[in-house]
Amino acid sequence: MNEKKILLSHGSGGILTRRLIEELFLKEFDNPLLRRLNDQAVFSLPPGRIAFTTDSYVVTPLFFPGGDIGKLAVCGTINDLAVGGAKPEYLSASFIIEEGMEIGELKRVVQSMALTAKEADVEIVTGDTKVVERGKGDRLYINTAGIGVVDNGNSPDPLNIEAGDVIILSGTIGDHAIAILTQREGIELETEMKSDCAPLHRLTEKMLSVEGGGRAIKAMRDATRGGVATVLVEFAVASKTSFVIQEELIPVKKSVRGACELSGFDPLYLANEGKLIAIVAKERADEVLRSMKNQMFGTDAAIIGTVESAKPGTVILETVIGNRRPLEPLTGEQLPRIC
Amino acid sequence: MNEKKILLSHGSGGILTRRLIEELFLKEFDNPLLRRLNDQAVFSLPPGRIAFTTDSYVVTPLFFPGGDIGKLAVCGTINDLAVGGAKPEYLSASFIIEEGMEIGELKRVVQSMALTAKEADVEIVTGDTKVVERGKGDRLYINTAGIGVVDNGNSPDPLNIEAGDVIILSGTIGDHAIAILTQREGIELETEMKSDCAPLHRLTEKMLSVEGGGRAIKAMRDATRGGVATVLVEFAVASKTSFVIQEELIPVKKSVRGACELSGFDPLYLANEGKLIAIVAKERADEVLRSMKNQMFGTDAAIIGTVESAKPGTVILETVIGNRRPLEPLTGEQLPRIC
Repeated sequence: MNEKKILLSHGSGGILTRRLIEELFLKEFDNPLLRRLNDQAVFSLPPGRIAFTTDSYVVTPLFFPGGDIGKLAVCGTINDLAVGGAKPEYLSASFIIEEGMEIGELKRVVQSMALTAKEADVEIVTGDTKVVERGKGDRLYINTAGIGVVDNGNSPDPLNIEAGDVIILSGTIGDHAIAILTQREGIELETEMKSDCAPLHRLTEKMLSVEGGGRAIKAMRDATRGGVATVLVEFAVASKTSFVIQEELIPVKKSVRGACELSGFDPLYLANEGKLIAIVAKERADEVLRSMKNQMFGTDAAIIGTVESAKPGTVILETVIGNRRPLEPLTGEQLPRIC
Repeated sequence: MNEKKILLSHGSGGILTRRLIEELFLKEFDNPLLRRLNDQAVFSLPPGRIAFTTDSYVVTPLFFPGGDIGKLAVCGTINDLAVGGAKPEYLSASFIIEEGMEIGELKRVVQSMALTAKEADVEIVTGDTKVVERGKGDRLYINTAGIGVVDNGNSPDPLNIEAGDVIILSGTIGDHAIAILTQREGIELETEMKSDCAPLHRLTEKMLSVEGGGRAIKAMRDATRGGVATVLVEFAVASKTSFVIQEELIPVKKSVRGACELSGFDPLYLANEGKLIAIVAKERADEVLRSMKNQMFGTDAAIIGTVESAKPGTVILETVIGNRRPLEPLTGEQLPRIC
């Protein structure tokens, strides 16, 4: 491409669109399905159930410590499939680009998507590009949709949760939100905060392959917008149970705790991009936890509480000093455009 | 919802997001898969191949004669599946909303999507909502991805095109672009132009069910951005054949022709949202054409030319007065944000 910046004509469907597709998207994402350059990818899946999901990404800034909008767009959709008990296989990628965006910057995002997809063993097989006029976007928005294969008899569903189950959190919370906040506001912390942005499908695969894991893992969800607290409330409401969690068991990095004290944020409501909550039958909880701790993205996994039957739909936090505080789902907005 | 306008908190992942999902999206799109409100839909598909596609929609204005961004987002993705020989089954819907958008306006769009999906017998089973600050969007962008079932042994692919095949166009061209143009510019024509925005899957189903249709229909594509000319050039290049089309055979409404003369646009490059091009084996062409003419969105279908072998990769227009003019793919931009 001779152009340095994105022009409206890159979204015309004509020669410049074609060149952008061939010289950037196809070059980086290259695979036989995409190479056909049809408006749809056609492929076979093994018989059984599939999972289907979508997310749009509008995070600002586009690049942040530990990731960028491209890595986020691939990991986020992988994770929505993974917590549904699926093995992620195929992604779509759709770009809404603001006129004037540096093509070099777009290329960095696309390369990051390609690398993340490759490492996660998923293929980006179909896509779309639109360009909007200056002032009608914010450089780049990305949508990814994804298809995964559910090869397990029992896929996790919050309706399966019952009193006696155990609540497992896969690691430290708040890292993503605080990384974005410090980058956005130019705050300097003692230790640089990195987003936890990561694909969790290998972690969930190990969890589900524990003997009886398919039945024992009642529900899983990645704790993105709204944080751990919002996921727990949604699970408690859906399953008509109550959740009790212990504050002292919740893994939070010292630097995140410090940033939260400074900013007034509660880590339980902060977005994560590489953490999940699993509700697991008590008799399999230790085994599931062990399977997680052996995985790169589960080393800090911990049991943080239990499911009870009193006061259905509530979540209680037992604080370090012994108080019991009910958790509400997130009201208002902690940090806009976190993902 | 008490709010009249979209707030940043509607994208927080907390209470307002939940309320928007339950009281708007779920209410309008209601179906058992979406009702679970998980971050992914899990379902079974019949064994065989599937088609997977995505498109983002940034059309302006949001409402235009004959359609709106919501109808477009459903039809466009249905059509990308249909021309791949698939029966569209499941869609995702992802919304990027600008802070301050009237919720009533969003509701009209969502209702239009729901109606279009219902009429087309597809389900919207998973979704996402993001909100960006004022001035970082243009009220509403929508992404739809889709999954369809390819139950035919042979799915259309431009690589199958060969000399001797016949070029069929499903109806009049330029209607969508001229409807948008006149709406945008406030131009008054003698007869109001309506977008041709329509789902084409029933048309393609009939075409493929002609005896031997699966083999006879070599390639199909809907002629959206870049218009008929761009699709034909892409087909000719992919199949290393040449295409010859007759200007007098191409259906163009009188009002579109008039608007083109006024504005300097060439209808062959204008976007359509309910028209497809099919390349069909000569011996089945009449039968395929007949099957189209019996369908609501194919009544004006016509054979407009033939595939030849000389000068591979070129498309020649034989004009009414007998000149032969080569068609290039669209360069530059005719009308930005047409879809």
